Amino acid sequence: MTSALIFKNRRLYYLDQRKLPLKEEWKECKNLRDAFLAIRELRIRGAPLIGVFAGYSVYIAIKNHREQDKGKFFKFLERVISFLKTSRPTAINLFWALDRIKKVAYQNKSKSIKELKELILKEAEMIHYEDRLLCRKMAENGIRLIKKGDRILTHCNTGFLATSGEGTALGVIYKGAHRYKNIKVYVDETRPLLQGARLTSWELIKRKIDVTLISDNMAAYLMQKGEIDKVFVGADRITRCGDVANKIGTYNLAVLAKYHHLPFYVVAPSTSFDLTIEKGEEIPIEQRSPDEVRKVLGKIYISPKRVKVYNPAFDVTPCQLISAIVTDRGIIKPPFKESILKIFYG
Amino acid sequence: MTSALIFKNRRLYYLDQRKLPLKEEWKECKNLRDAFLAIRELRIRGAPLIGVFAGYSVYIAIKNHREQDKGKFFKFLERVISFLKTSRPTAINLFWALDRIKKVAYQNKSKSIKELKELILKEAEMIHYEDRLLCRKMAENGIRLIKKGDRILTHCNTGFLATSGEGTALGVIYKGAHRYKNIKVYVDETRPLLQGARLTSWELIKRKIDVTLISDNMAAYLMQKGEIDKVFVGADRITRCGDVANKIGTYNLAVLAKYHHLPFYVVAPSTSFDLTIEKGEEIPIEQRSPDEVRKVLGKIYISPKRVKVYNPAFDVTPCQLISAIVTDRGIIKPPFKESILKIFYG
Repeated sequence: MTSALIFKNRRLYYLDQRKLPLKEEWKECKNLRDAFLAIRELRIRGAPLIGVFAGYSVYIAIKNHREQDKGKFFKFLERVISFLKTSRPTAINLFWALDRIKKVAYQNKSKSIKELKELILKEAEMIHYEDRLLCRKMAENGIRLIKKGDRILTHCNTGFLATSGEGTALGVIYKGAHRYKNIKVYVDETRPLLQGARLTSWELIKRKIDVTLISDNMAAYLMQKGEIDKVFVGADRITRCGDVANKIGTYNLAVLAKYHHLPFYVVAPSTSFDLTIEKGEEIPIEQRSPDEVRKVLGKIYISPKRVKVYNPAFDVTPCQLISAIVTDRGIIKPPFKESILKIFYG
Repeated sequence: MTSALIFKNRRLYYLDQRKLPLKEEWKECKNLRDAFLAIRELRIRGAPLIGVFAGYSVYIAIKNHREQDKGKFFKFLERVISFLKTSRPTAINLFWALDRIKKVAYQNKSKSIKELKELILKEAEMIHYEDRLLCRKMAENGIRLIKKGDRILTHCNTGFLATSGEGTALGVIYKGAHRYKNIKVYVDETRPLLQGARLTSWELIKRKIDVTLISDNMAAYLMQKGEIDKVFVGADRITRCGDVANKIGTYNLAVLAKYHHLPFYVVAPSTSFDLTIEKGEEIPIEQRSPDEVRKVLGKIYISPKRVKVYNPAFDVTPCQLISAIVTDRGIIKPPFKESILKIFYG
């Protein structure tokens, strides 16, 4: 298992990540509703993988569409894309991939509907291919930040379950662990949805890497004891000035890393940058169901059933707390604003 | 329900806190083994309550002891006390209460065994009575740190389930919420054993106080958004210089509070001070079973079953991060070392 998404014989399959690590259950995404729910309910997750999945989802949604009128076909396509855009608000890759598909369609407006469908499929495949390439490049760039014997703390899941390649932050860690055999990884469990406990520890065990699971609130104590050398996390969206939206708890770690004088690295593909916005405050933060906090794994209550809950799925780490951002185009260092412009516009 | 411990007709009953908030199940502590397990397995918990419970436990363990030889009786008493001391390592109140019982016995060595048993019972009742009094005094002192409209973050459980009175940190909050009707409380869920989600949110709902539950890793984001005015936590042991051992995640909050310029208050009775040690590093930190992290509520796995786990039950917050320590003897402010000596030795 090296990917949570398979596109084969024009069909889209995905590993239902809610069931991991107890069960490896594959599902087929057969239509638009399936696709929407798969993203909305985090059956498929991870900013880059959401992008890849969204690309294919458009094709799945339109492939059996019988409309012969091109105006109506485009209207339908627009509806599909708009609907998928409402599945989740924070990760930029979703919007980026959907806009890319849309652009291809409009750039080839003169082509037949059949040809348009093929072009959309090709674009989705291209997004998929590129995502794997981006992962390789991020790992190649990020390895420079890893040393022999490093004890690395990571948060949430950023590996082969979060991308269609080896991962963002975890991809760099895999490469590091491959080069230096004695890398040790600490994983935050990442409440409320436990992506660290369920997915990252599972991935690291599959890759035979030394992994230790901790509760989110143990990170500070480990840092105080000198057990952590650096922190690596992913990103769901990065602004023009280098502010980073990522899984709730990331900002927490960034503050702790700063206080303990530890490097704090973000790893994300160029597709996770949103150059249309300047500051992190402009990024919409998804608020999720209170029951995610009240329950565990959607199964058992850990609190009174009606207790009020605050459940932001992401937080924003201001660029001042970030040591470097590893991308497929190189490592971005402070001052971020200038470095980001340089990497994107040369 | 205003206490998790009842001593009545020479019998000791306790509310099994592992079952809360889903079930209010009372148990009788019938012998030494019961007492040991109740503390060890956190059926009864909270530094002050452990002290009170331990006092009564000695009486329960010896009351039916038929030994007529006083030397043998004292040997037995020593064994009981030593065994109870091994139930948990971090909270000082356990050792403090047991030593107090022991002292009373030795100070009355000439009395009959029957009289000694009564004196031990009386001392346990005195510890119980005093604990309630200390809670009242802490609340009276701590109220000065609370203002109208405060939004307070707290961690773990420090209320009427953690003491035999109204609580330490939560006791102060109760008094604050009673005086100013618009106090808002945020509670960390406090993984891995979820004392915040299970116990504190349940207590606050019982007291009709505005409570919002969050995952531990959301605190930083709330502070960043300006939603928290101050932090109140309890303590399991406080050293001569003011370093504080408390539930894992407390140090995390202290660093975050410092970074966001928020007051960070510790509330603890004078019985939680350990003046025999200077620095926090000298406090033994209890390491608990990996399954507490791998599972939730001891029921369902949230990670691969064999993943390595690090599970310290407490951490140490250095005095530099603490704004004030509220005790029954007054509020201690920096420089802590001098202030602590003054409060204890005048």
